[in-house]
Amino acid sequence: MTRNYRLIIEYDGSAFHGWQKQKDARTVQGEIESALFIMTGKKIVVNGSGRTDAGVHAYGQAANFRSDAGLGPEVFLKGLNSLLPNDVVIRECHDVDKTFHARYDVRRKTYCYHMLNQAVPAAVMRQYVWFIRRKLDLDAMRAAAGHLLGSHDFKSFEGTGSPRSSTVRTVFKAELRPGDAAKIVFEIEADGFLRFMVRNIVGTLVDVGHGKLTPDDFKNILLAKNRDLAGATAPPQGLFLVRVVY
Amino acid sequence: MTRNYRLIIEYDGSAFHGWQKQKDARTVQGEIESALFIMTGKKIVVNGSGRTDAGVHAYGQAANFRSDAGLGPEVFLKGLNSLLPNDVVIRECHDVDKTFHARYDVRRKTYCYHMLNQAVPAAVMRQYVWFIRRKLDLDAMRAAAGHLLGSHDFKSFEGTGSPRSSTVRTVFKAELRPGDAAKIVFEIEADGFLRFMVRNIVGTLVDVGHGKLTPDDFKNILLAKNRDLAGATAPPQGLFLVRVVY
Repeated sequence: MTRNYRLIIEYDGSAFHGWQKQKDARTVQGEIESALFIMTGKKIVVNGSGRTDAGVHAYGQAANFRSDAGLGPEVFLKGLNSLLPNDVVIRECHDVDKTFHARYDVRRKTYCYHMLNQAVPAAVMRQYVWFIRRKLDLDAMRAAAGHLLGSHDFKSFEGTGSPRSSTVRTVFKAELRPGDAAKIVFEIEADGFLRFMVRNIVGTLVDVGHGKLTPDDFKNILLAKNRDLAGATAPPQGLFLVRVVY
Repeated sequence: MTRNYRLIIEYDGSAFHGWQKQKDARTVQGEIESALFIMTGKKIVVNGSGRTDAGVHAYGQAANFRSDAGLGPEVFLKGLNSLLPNDVVIRECHDVDKTFHARYDVRRKTYCYHMLNQAVPAAVMRQYVWFIRRKLDLDAMRAAAGHLLGSHDFKSFEGTGSPRSSTVRTVFKAELRPGDAAKIVFEIEADGFLRFMVRNIVGTLVDVGHGKLTPDDFKNILLAKNRDLAGATAPPQGLFLVRVVY
């Protein structure tokens, strides 16, 4: 009997060319499928909740796969963790209904983006933040981020060369908060994300934080549905896929 | 005129063979002295507040050096940071009295040790914690750690092969607290530390946390002044030199 399993996956994206399997590149999906092949002797496809780009991290990526090997989820959990390299860890494995699909069934996703705003860069944990030397105006960034809430066409923040049937998404939360030491954390929850959407939003919010744009400019960029108006794409190492809700 | 400068240094110990300069090994002291040589054309000795071992990190290592190059501390700060590799950062540079010596003048040092106590290891930030799968009894560990407070002969927790004139040290703080997620942080402040002292204490506290030793056993190990009785040395990557007070 074929069973369907849901995984919760943590990974350090530093040494990965992203989630999605590619020929001749180390990817998270590729590593998990290789481990499943060793465990079951079968080529099994792992469906992620969505791609993450090269260098992006995850605390709670979700995925599912089907297997008729008759193994319990706890066997997959232990077996995969003993086979996987130490920059990817299966945090949970559960039996799920046979119709469950990790990409099609997503209801909400949460990302966090970590900035470090101080005069000198970090040495410790530098691979998990975007270092920004010039002082950021957190209040201005918050005012701008407020315009993200609700349903909008996010075309202005979509990466080029990634056509989607619809670029409308609904944002439930868009919060900036001080983190440890001089960190600033941007947390965003939505029913889905376009390619580079979080990193393009963050790059534009940083322009607001530096006074290059006002919160109203930010709102107008969103409304213009034109990628040319938004700021630069923030670097990948500050971005974490935190959780996926079904 | 020769000036004396104090540095506050952050480093990620992962790729260093510790603080102290060695032939044919990458060390923090070695990197800073190389950068000073490039800036001044002179071989300048950097005195650290003490060694840290291979793999140990620092947020606030302190050091001093003397130079007659006539450069302001802000010039050294910028110059060193532009020359140093990105796993070592000079956080501060100040002029200090010509008699100041970073090792001899230490009054207090604070170390933190980070444990991760959960069923599965971490992928993100795994290089900064000791992963401990079996549940730790934090209350028992706290009771044991309380015995560290005050002046004691810490011979039981000294690394072998490191004779000191005195193995008596005074501990001002020895605290265990829950950190982010499933982290447990041990913070210890003292007027000085013996080689491997924090890591040997942590290894023994973990034996208490697992019920192999009672808090009273821990006290008796301390009083016995015998290294053979203490637990294993905790691994280096969980240890951070947080600050040095003069």
